[in-house]
Amino acid sequence: MERRHFEQELEELKQRLLWMAGLAEKSVHQAVQALFEEKEDIAKRVLEEESAINELQIEIDDRVMSLLALQQPMAADLRFILSVSRINSDLERIGDQAVNIAQSVLRILRHPQVKPYVDIPRMSALVEGMVRDSLNAVVQRNAELARSVLVRDDEVDHFRDQIFRELLTYMMENAAVIFPAFELILVAKNLERIGDHATNIAEDVIYMVAGQDVRHMAADHH
Amino acid sequence: MERRHFEQELEELKQRLLWMAGLAEKSVHQAVQALFEEKEDIAKRVLEEESAINELQIEIDDRVMSLLALQQPMAADLRFILSVSRINSDLERIGDQAVNIAQSVLRILRHPQVKPYVDIPRMSALVEGMVRDSLNAVVQRNAELARSVLVRDDEVDHFRDQIFRELLTYMMENAAVIFPAFELILVAKNLERIGDHATNIAEDVIYMVAGQDVRHMAADHH
Repeated sequence: MERRHFEQELEELKQRLLWMAGLAEKSVHQAVQALFEEKEDIAKRVLEEESAINELQIEIDDRVMSLLALQQPMAADLRFILSVSRINSDLERIGDQAVNIAQSVLRILRHPQVKPYVDIPRMSALVEGMVRDSLNAVVQRNAELARSVLVRDDEVDHFRDQIFRELLTYMMENAAVIFPAFELILVAKNLERIGDHATNIAEDVIYMVAGQDVRHMAADHH
Repeated sequence: MERRHFEQELEELKQRLLWMAGLAEKSVHQAVQALFEEKEDIAKRVLEEESAINELQIEIDDRVMSLLALQQPMAADLRFILSVSRINSDLERIGDQAVNIAQSVLRILRHPQVKPYVDIPRMSALVEGMVRDSLNAVVQRNAELARSVLVRDDEVDHFRDQIFRELLTYMMENAAVIFPAFELILVAKNLERIGDHATNIAEDVIYMVAGQDVRHMAADHH
Protein backbone atom coordinates (compact mmCIF):
# COMPACT_ATOMS: atom_id res chain seq x y z
CA MET A 1 0.00 0.00 0.00
CA GLU A 2 1.51 3.32 -0.94
CA ARG A 3 1.57 6.15 1.55
CA ARG A 4 -1.22 8.17 -0.09
CA HIS A 5 -3.51 5.17 -0.07
CA PHE A 6 -2.61 4.54 3.57
CA GLU A 7 -3.46 8.15 4.50
CA GLN A 8 -6.78 7.73 2.77
CA GLU A 9 -7.51 4.54 4.73
CA LEU A 10 -6.68 6.34 7.98
CA GLU A 11 -9.03 9.16 7.04
CA GLU A 12 -11.83 6.69 6.28
CA LEU A 13 -11.21 4.94 9.59
CA LYS A 14 -11.56 8.26 11.36
CA GLN A 15 -14.78 9.08 9.48
CA ARG A 16 -16.32 5.73 10.43
CA LEU A 17 -15.35 6.26 14.06
CA LEU A 18 -16.99 9.69 14.02
CA TRP A 19 -20.13 8.22 12.52
CA MET A 20 -20.14 5.65 15.34
CA ALA A 21 -19.56 8.43 17.87
CA GLY A 22 -22.59 10.28 16.51
CA LEU A 23 -24.77 7.20 16.94
CA ALA A 24 -23.58 6.58 20.50
CA GLU A 25 -24.09 10.22 21.45
CA LYS A 26 -27.59 10.19 19.99
CA SER A 27 -28.49 7.00 21.89
CA VAL A 28 -27.52 8.57 25.20
CA HIS A 29 -29.42 11.74 24.39
CA GLN A 30 -32.56 9.85 23.39
CA ALA A 31 -32.43 7.58 26.43
CA VAL A 32 -32.36 10.48 28.90
CA GLN A 33 -34.91 12.39 26.84
CA ALA A 34 -37.23 9.36 27.02
CA LEU A 35 -36.82 9.40 30.81
CA PHE A 36 -37.51 13.08 31.36
CA GLU A 37 -40.29 13.43 28.79
CA GLU A 38 -41.76 10.00 29.63
CA LYS A 39 -41.76 8.91 26.00
CA GLU A 40 -41.97 5.19 25.43
CA ASP A 41 -41.50 5.49 21.66
CA ILE A 42 -38.15 7.24 22.08
CA ALA A 43 -36.96 4.57 24.53
CA LYS A 44 -37.90 1.90 22.01
CA ARG A 45 -36.01 3.71 19.26
CA VAL A 46 -32.82 3.44 21.35
CA LEU A 47 -33.29 -0.34 21.50
CA GLU A 48 -33.87 -0.54 17.75
CA GLU A 49 -30.80 1.50 16.89
CA GLU A 50 -28.41 -0.63 18.96
CA SER A 51 -27.66 -3.08 16.15
CA ALA A 52 -26.32 -0.30 13.90
CA ILE A 53 -23.74 0.55 16.60
CA ASN A 54 -22.79 -3.11 17.03
CA GLU A 55 -22.29 -3.61 13.29
CA LEU A 56 -20.20 -0.49 13.02
CA GLN A 57 -18.01 -1.63 15.92
CA ILE A 58 -17.13 -4.81 14.03
CA GLU A 59 -16.53 -2.94 10.78
CA ILE A 60 -14.15 -0.52 12.51
CA ASP A 61 -12.27 -3.36 14.21
CA ASP A 62 -11.88 -5.06 10.82
CA ARG A 63 -10.43 -1.85 9.37
CA VAL A 64 -8.03 -1.56 12.31
CA MET A 65 -6.94 -5.16 11.81
CA SER A 66 -6.30 -4.77 8.10
CA LEU A 67 -4.40 -1.49 8.56
CA LEU A 68 -2.15 -3.19 11.10
CA ALA A 69 -1.73 -6.30 8.97
CA LEU A 70 -1.09 -4.64 5.62
CA GLN A 71 1.02 -1.74 6.79
CA GLN A 72 3.71 -1.36 9.36
CA PRO A 73 2.48 1.89 10.85
CA MET A 74 5.06 3.94 12.69
CA ALA A 75 4.77 5.55 16.14
CA ALA A 76 2.16 8.29 15.62
CA ASP A 77 0.03 6.30 13.15
CA LEU A 78 0.21 3.23 15.35
CA ARG A 79 -0.90 5.22 18.38
CA PHE A 80 -3.77 6.63 16.33
CA ILE A 81 -4.90 3.21 15.11
CA LEU A 82 -4.72 1.61 18.57
CA SER A 83 -6.59 4.57 20.05
CA VAL A 84 -9.32 4.20 17.45
CA SER A 85 -9.67 0.56 18.43
CA ARG A 86 -10.10 1.45 22.10
CA ILE A 87 -12.40 4.42 21.47
CA ASN A 88 -14.48 2.13 19.27
CA SER A 89 -14.94 -0.26 22.17
CA ASP A 90 -15.84 2.57 24.57
CA LEU A 91 -18.42 3.93 22.12
CA GLU A 92 -20.05 0.53 21.82
CA ARG A 93 -20.28 0.34 25.60
CA ILE A 94 -21.74 3.84 25.79
CA GLY A 95 -24.40 2.53 23.41
CA ASP A 96 -25.00 -0.44 25.74
CA GLN A 97 -25.49 1.89 28.70
CA ALA A 98 -27.97 3.97 26.71
CA VAL A 99 -29.87 0.74 26.02
CA ASN A 100 -29.88 -0.08 29.73
CA ILE A 101 -31.29 3.37 30.50
CA ALA A 102 -33.96 2.94 27.82
CA GLN A 103 -34.94 -0.41 29.36
CA SER A 104 -35.22 1.21 32.79
CA VAL A 105 -37.41 3.91 31.23
CA LEU A 106 -39.75 1.27 29.78
CA ARG A 107 -40.09 -0.37 33.21
CA ILE A 108 -40.53 2.99 34.98
CA LEU A 109 -43.30 4.04 32.57
CA ARG A 110 -45.26 0.88 33.39
CA HIS A 111 -45.54 2.04 37.03
CA PRO A 112 -47.10 5.08 38.70
CA GLN A 113 -44.77 8.04 38.31
CA VAL A 114 -42.56 9.22 41.11
CA LYS A 115 -40.95 12.49 40.49
CA PRO A 116 -38.74 14.33 41.11
CA TYR A 117 -35.79 12.72 39.41
CA VAL A 118 -33.56 14.28 42.07
CA ASP A 119 -30.25 15.34 40.49
CA ILE A 120 -30.44 12.98 37.52
CA PRO A 121 -31.13 15.78 35.01
CA ARG A 122 -28.01 17.64 36.15
CA MET A 123 -25.94 14.45 36.19
CA SER A 124 -27.05 13.52 32.69
CA ALA A 125 -26.28 17.02 31.37
CA LEU A 126 -22.79 16.72 32.86
CA VAL A 127 -22.23 13.26 31.38
CA GLU A 128 -23.58 14.21 27.95
CA GLY A 129 -21.17 17.16 27.96
CA MET A 130 -18.28 14.82 28.78
CA VAL A 131 -19.18 12.52 25.90
CA ARG A 132 -19.50 15.45 23.50
CA ASP A 133 -16.22 17.05 24.57
CA SER A 134 -14.28 13.78 24.55
CA LEU A 135 -15.43 13.26 20.96
CA ASN A 136 -14.64 16.84 19.98
CA ALA A 137 -11.21 16.25 21.50
CA VAL A 138 -10.82 13.24 19.17
CA VAL A 139 -11.76 15.29 16.10
CA GLN A 140 -9.58 18.26 17.01
CA ARG A 141 -6.80 16.11 18.51
CA ASN A 142 -7.15 18.49 21.42
CA ALA A 143 -5.38 17.22 24.55
CA GLU A 144 -6.43 20.26 26.57
CA LEU A 145 -10.13 19.64 25.92
CA ALA A 146 -9.53 15.97 26.77
CA ARG A 147 -8.02 16.98 30.11
CA SER A 148 -11.11 19.08 30.88
CA VAL A 149 -13.12 15.86 30.57
CA LEU A 150 -10.89 13.99 33.04
CA VAL A 151 -11.42 16.72 35.62
CA ARG A 152 -15.19 16.28 35.45
CA ASP A 153 -15.06 12.62 36.49
CA ASP A 154 -15.04 13.55 40.18
CA GLU A 155 -18.18 15.64 39.72
CA VAL A 156 -19.91 12.59 38.27
CA ASP A 157 -19.04 10.54 41.35
CA HIS A 158 -20.27 13.37 43.53
CA PHE A 159 -23.63 13.47 41.72
CA ARG A 160 -23.91 9.69 41.91
CA ASP A 161 -23.36 9.66 45.69
CA GLN A 162 -25.77 12.55 46.16
CA ILE A 163 -28.45 10.86 44.04
CA PHE A 164 -28.01 7.55 45.87
CA ARG A 165 -28.37 9.29 49.22
CA GLU A 166 -31.52 11.14 48.21
CA LEU A 167 -33.14 8.09 46.65
CA LEU A 168 -32.38 5.93 49.70
CA THR A 169 -33.90 8.54 52.01
CA TYR A 170 -36.88 8.66 49.71
CA MET A 171 -37.23 4.85 49.91
CA MET A 172 -37.00 4.85 53.70
CA GLU A 173 -39.79 7.43 53.95
CA ASN A 174 -42.15 5.68 51.58
CA ALA A 175 -41.99 1.99 50.70
CA ALA A 176 -44.27 2.62 47.71
CA VAL A 177 -41.46 4.37 45.83
CA ILE A 178 -38.86 1.64 46.39
CA PHE A 179 -39.32 0.12 42.97
CA PRO A 180 -39.13 3.29 40.82
CA ALA A 181 -36.38 4.74 43.03
CA PHE A 182 -34.43 1.53 42.45
CA GLU A 183 -34.75 2.03 38.69
CA LEU A 184 -33.39 5.56 39.07
CA ILE A 185 -30.43 4.12 41.00
CA LEU A 186 -29.74 1.91 37.99
CA VAL A 187 -30.03 4.92 35.68
CA ALA A 188 -27.51 6.85 37.81
CA LYS A 189 -25.16 3.84 37.65
CA ASN A 190 -25.51 3.78 33.86
CA LEU A 191 -24.78 7.50 33.62
CA GLU A 192 -21.72 7.00 35.81
CA ARG A 193 -20.44 4.34 33.43
CA ILE A 194 -21.05 6.56 30.41
CA GLY A 195 -18.94 9.19 32.17
CA ASP A 196 -16.23 6.54 32.74
CA HIS A 197 -16.20 5.70 29.04
CA ALA A 198 -15.96 9.39 28.10
CA THR A 199 -13.00 9.57 30.49
CA ASN A 200 -11.39 6.57 28.80
CA ILE A 201 -11.83 8.27 25.42
CA ALA A 202 -10.27 11.48 26.77
CA GLU A 203 -7.31 9.45 28.08
CA ASP A 204 -6.91 7.91 24.64
CA VAL A 205 -6.87 11.35 23.02
CA ILE A 206 -4.05 12.44 25.32
CA TYR A 207 -2.17 9.24 24.50
CA MET A 208 -2.82 9.70 20.78
CA VAL A 209 -1.72 13.34 20.68
CA ALA A 210 1.04 13.40 23.25
CA GLY A 211 2.05 9.74 23.44
CA GLN A 212 1.54 10.03 27.18
CA ASP A 213 -0.27 7.38 29.18
CA VAL A 214 -2.32 9.20 31.81
CA ARG A 215 -4.30 6.24 33.06
CA HIS A 216 -4.09 5.63 36.79
CA MET A 217 -2.32 8.93 37.33
CA ALA A 218 -4.77 10.29 39.83
CA ALA A 219 -7.97 8.57 40.85
CA ASP A 220 -8.91 5.51 38.87
CA HIS A 221 -11.46 6.37 36.25
CA HIS A 222 -12.70 3.03 35.04
CA MET B 1 14.18 -8.48 15.59
CA GLU B 2 14.75 -12.03 14.49
CA ARG B 3 11.97 -14.56 14.63
CA ARG B 4 13.32 -16.44 17.66
CA HIS B 5 13.60 -13.23 19.62
CA PHE B 6 10.08 -12.29 18.55
CA GLU B 7 8.73 -15.66 19.76
CA GLN B 8 10.44 -15.07 23.06
CA GLU B 9 8.85 -11.62 23.39
CA LEU B 10 5.43 -13.12 22.65
CA GLU B 11 5.98 -15.75 25.32
CA GLU B 12 6.99 -13.08 27.86
CA LEU B 13 3.91 -11.05 26.94
CA LYS B 14 1.76 -14.09 27.61
CA GLN B 15 3.48 -14.75 30.96
CA ARG B 16 2.90 -11.17 32.09
CA LEU B 17 -0.76 -11.39 31.07
CA LEU B 18 -1.15 -14.59 33.07
CA TRP B 19 0.45 -12.95 36.08
CA MET B 20 -2.04 -10.10 35.73
CA ALA B 21 -4.86 -12.63 35.38
CA GLY B 22 -3.79 -14.27 38.63
CA LEU B 23 -3.89 -10.92 40.44
CA ALA B 24 -7.34 -10.05 39.08
CA GLU B 25 -8.72 -13.47 39.97
CA LYS B 26 -7.32 -13.22 43.49
CA SER B 27 -8.85 -9.75 43.96
CA VAL B 28 -12.29 -11.03 43.09
CA HIS B 29 -11.90 -14.03 45.35
CA GLN B 30 -10.73 -11.93 48.28
CA ALA B 31 -13.49 -9.36 47.80
CA VAL B 32 -16.28 -11.93 47.99
CA GLN B 33 -14.50 -13.77 50.79
CA ALA B 34 -14.36 -10.49 52.75
CA LEU B 35 -18.12 -10.14 52.25
CA PHE B 36 -19.12 -13.64 53.31
CA GLU B 37 -16.66 -13.94 56.20
CA GLU B 38 -17.11 -10.30 57.24
CA LYS B 39 -13.39 -9.62 57.22
CA GLU B 40 -12.40 -5.99 57.05
CA ASP B 41 -8.67 -6.77 56.71
CA ILE B 42 -9.24 -8.85 53.57
CA ALA B 43 -11.35 -6.08 52.02
CA LYS B 44 -8.55 -3.61 52.74
CA ARG B 45 -6.00 -5.93 51.15
CA VAL B 46 -7.98 -5.79 47.89
CA LEU B 47 -7.72 -1.99 47.92
CA GLU B 48 -3.97 -2.14 48.57
CA GLU B 49 -3.31 -4.59 45.79
CA GLU B 50 -5.07 -2.55 43.11
CA SER B 51 -1.99 -0.52 42.18
CA ALA B 52 -0.05 -3.67 41.23
CA ILE B 53 -2.77 -4.50 38.68
CA ASN B 54 -2.77 -0.96 37.31
CA GLU B 55 0.99 -0.92 36.87
CA LEU B 56 0.95 -4.27 35.16
CA GLN B 57 -1.75 -3.08 32.77
CA ILE B 58 0.48 -0.24 31.59
CA GLU B 59 3.53 -2.51 31.31
CA ILE B 60 1.57 -4.99 29.16
CA ASP B 61 0.25 -2.21 26.93
CA ASP B 62 3.80 -0.96 26.45
CA ARG B 63 4.91 -4.46 25.42
CA VAL B 64 2.00 -4.69 22.97
CA MET B 65 2.92 -1.32 21.51
CA SER B 66 6.57 -2.17 21.03
CA LEU B 67 5.79 -5.58 19.51
CA LEU B 68 3.49 -3.88 17.00
CA ALA B 69 5.97 -1.09 16.30
CA LEU B 70 9.14 -3.15 15.96
CA GLN B 71 7.70 -6.13 14.16
CA GLN B 72 5.16 -6.55 11.44
CA PRO B 73 3.28 -9.44 12.97
CA MET B 74 1.25 -11.55 10.58
CA ALA B 75 -2.35 -12.72 10.92
CA ALA B 76 -2.21 -15.19 13.84
CA ASP B 77 0.43 -13.26 15.83
CA LEU B 78 -1.40 -10.02 15.24
CA ARG B 79 -4.66 -11.53 16.46
CA PHE B 80 -2.84 -12.81 19.53
CA ILE B 81 -1.25 -9.44 20.33
CA LEU B 82 -4.50 -7.51 19.86
CA SER B 83 -6.35 -10.05 22.00
CA VAL B 84 -3.76 -9.68 24.75
CA SER B 85 -4.33 -5.94 24.66
CA ARG B 86 -8.09 -6.36 25.07
CA ILE B 87 -7.84 -9.08 27.71
CA ASN B 88 -5.43 -6.83 29.59
CA SER B 89 -8.05 -4.10 29.67
CA ASP B 90 -10.77 -6.53 30.82
CA LEU B 91 -8.55 -7.84 33.62
CA GLU B 92 -7.88 -4.33 34.85
CA ARG B 93 -11.62 -3.70 34.95
CA ILE B 94 -12.24 -6.95 36.78
CA GLY B 95 -9.77 -5.63 39.37
CA ASP B 96 -11.75 -2.37 39.56
CA GLN B 97 -14.97 -4.26 40.21
CA ALA B 98 -13.28 -6.27 42.96
CA VAL B 99 -12.24 -2.94 44.52
CA ASN B 100 -15.84 -1.72 44.32
CA ILE B 101 -17.04 -4.86 46.08
CA ALA B 102 -14.37 -4.43 48.76
CA GLN B 103 -15.52 -0.84 49.31
CA SER B 104 -19.13 -2.02 49.67
CA VAL B 105 -17.94 -4.61 52.20
CA LEU B 106 -16.23 -1.91 54.27
CA ARG B 107 -19.45 0.13 54.31
CA ILE B 108 -21.59 -2.91 55.08
CA LEU B 109 -19.38 -3.88 58.02
CA ARG B 110 -19.87 -0.46 59.59
CA HIS B 111 -23.61 -1.16 59.89
CA PRO B 112 -25.63 -3.76 61.72
CA GLN B 113 -25.58 -7.01 59.76
CA VAL B 114 -28.44 -8.10 57.60
CA LYS B 115 -28.18 -11.59 56.39
CA PRO B 116 -28.99 -13.59 54.38
CA TYR B 117 -27.02 -12.56 51.32
CA VAL B 118 -29.82 -14.05 49.20
CA ASP B 119 -28.31 -15.66 46.08
CA ILE B 120 -25.09 -13.64 46.08
CA PRO B 121 -22.93 -16.62 47.17
CA ARG B 122 -24.21 -18.68 44.23
CA MET B 123 -23.86 -15.77 41.82
CA SER B 124 -20.29 -15.12 42.94
CA ALA B 125 -19.38 -18.82 42.60
CA LEU B 126 -20.76 -18.75 39.06
CA VAL B 127 -18.89 -15.57 38.16
CA GLU B 128 -15.62 -16.73 39.71
CA GLY B 129 -15.92 -19.92 37.66
CA MET B 130 -16.42 -17.86 34.48
CA VAL B 131 -13.30 -15.80 35.21
CA ARG B 132 -11.26 -18.94 35.93
CA ASP B 133 -12.46 -20.77 32.82
CA SER B 134 -12.03 -17.77 30.53
CA LEU B 135 -8.42 -17.53 31.72
CA ASN B 136 -7.85 -21.27 31.37
CA ALA B 137 -9.22 -20.90 27.86
CA VAL B 138 -6.56 -18.23 27.19
CA VAL B 139 -3.77 -20.49 28.46
CA GLN B 140 -4.98 -23.57 26.59
CA ARG B 141 -6.17 -21.58 23.55
CA ASN B 142 -9.33 -23.59 24.07
CA ALA B 143 -12.27 -22.19 22.07
CA GLU B 144 -14.65 -24.82 23.40
CA LEU B 145 -13.99 -23.87 27.02
CA ALA B 146 -14.41 -20.23 25.98
CA ARG B 147 -17.81 -21.02 24.50
CA SER B 148 -18.87 -22.65 27.78
CA VAL B 149 -18.22 -19.26 29.42
CA LEU B 150 -20.42 -17.40 26.92
CA VAL B 151 -23.31 -19.75 27.68
CA ARG B 152 -23.16 -18.89 31.39
CA ASP B 153 -23.74 -15.18 30.82
CA ASP B 154 -27.52 -15.68 30.78
CA GLU B 155 -27.36 -17.44 34.16
CA VAL B 156 -25.60 -14.40 35.56
CA ASP B 157 -28.40 -12.13 34.38
CA HIS B 158 -30.93 -14.53 35.85
CA PHE B 159 -29.20 -14.44 39.25
CA ARG B 160 -28.95 -10.67 39.12
CA ASP B 161 -32.68 -10.27 38.45
CA GLN B 162 -33.53 -12.79 41.16
CA ILE B 163 -31.27 -11.05 43.70
CA PHE B 164 -32.70 -7.63 42.84
CA ARG B 165 -36.24 -8.93 43.28
CA GLU B 166 -35.50 -10.50 46.65
CA LEU B 167 -33.64 -7.48 47.96
CA LEU B 168 -36.38 -5.09 46.88
CA THR B 169 -39.02 -7.23 48.60
CA TYR B 170 -36.83 -7.25 51.67
CA MET B 171 -36.57 -3.45 51.56
CA MET B 172 -40.31 -3.04 51.23
CA GLU B 173 -40.91 -5.23 54.26
CA ASN B 174 -38.40 -3.50 56.50
CA ALA B 175 -37.09 0.02 55.95
CA ALA B 176 -34.22 -0.67 58.36
CA VAL B 177 -32.52 -2.94 55.82
CA ILE B 178 -32.72 -0.47 52.92
CA PHE B 179 -29.14 0.68 53.31
CA PRO B 180 -27.37 -2.71 53.53
CA ALA B 181 -29.69 -4.21 50.91
CA PHE B 182 -28.73 -1.33 48.61
CA GLU B 183 -25.05 -2.22 49.11
CA LEU B 184 -25.82 -5.81 48.15
CA ILE B 185 -27.52 -4.51 44.99
CA LEU B 186 -24.26 -2.75 44.15
CA VAL B 187 -22.31 -5.96 44.84
CA ALA B 188 -24.61 -7.91 42.49
CA LYS B 189 -24.07 -5.23 39.81
CA ASN B 190 -20.31 -5.56 40.28
CA LEU B 191 -20.48 -9.34 39.98
CA GLU B 192 -22.56 -8.94 36.82
CA ARG B 193 -19.84 -6.73 35.32
CA ILE B 194 -17.12 -9.20 36.27
CA GLY B 195 -19.14 -11.84 34.40
CA ASP B 196 -19.35 -9.46 31.41
CA HIS B 197 -15.58 -9.06 31.39
CA ALA B 198 -15.07 -12.84 31.59
CA THR B 199 -17.42 -13.07 28.60
CA ASN B 200 -15.35 -10.49 26.72
CA ILE B 201 -12.20 -12.52 27.45
CA ALA B 202 -13.89 -15.69 26.22
CA GLU B 203 -14.90 -13.89 23.01
CA ASP B 204 -11.30 -12.80 22.56
CA VAL B 205 -10.08 -16.38 22.95
CA ILE B 206 -12.45 -17.52 20.20
CA TYR B 207 -11.24 -14.67 18.00
CA MET B 208 -7.61 -15.46 18.80
CA VAL B 209 -7.90 -19.18 18.13
CA ALA B 210 -10.42 -19.28 15.33
CA GLY B 211 -10.19 -15.77 13.88
CA GLN B 212 -13.94 -15.58 14.30
CA ASP B 213 -15.66 -12.52 15.72
CA VAL B 214 -18.52 -13.77 17.90
CA ARG B 215 -19.45 -10.47 19.47
CA HIS B 216 -23.09 -9.49 19.06
CA MET B 217 -23.93 -12.90 17.62
CA ALA B 218 -26.64 -13.71 20.12
CA ALA B 219 -27.52 -11.53 23.05
CA ASP B 220 -25.22 -8.63 23.71
CA HIS B 221 -22.74 -9.50 26.40
CA HIS B 222 -21.13 -6.22 27.26
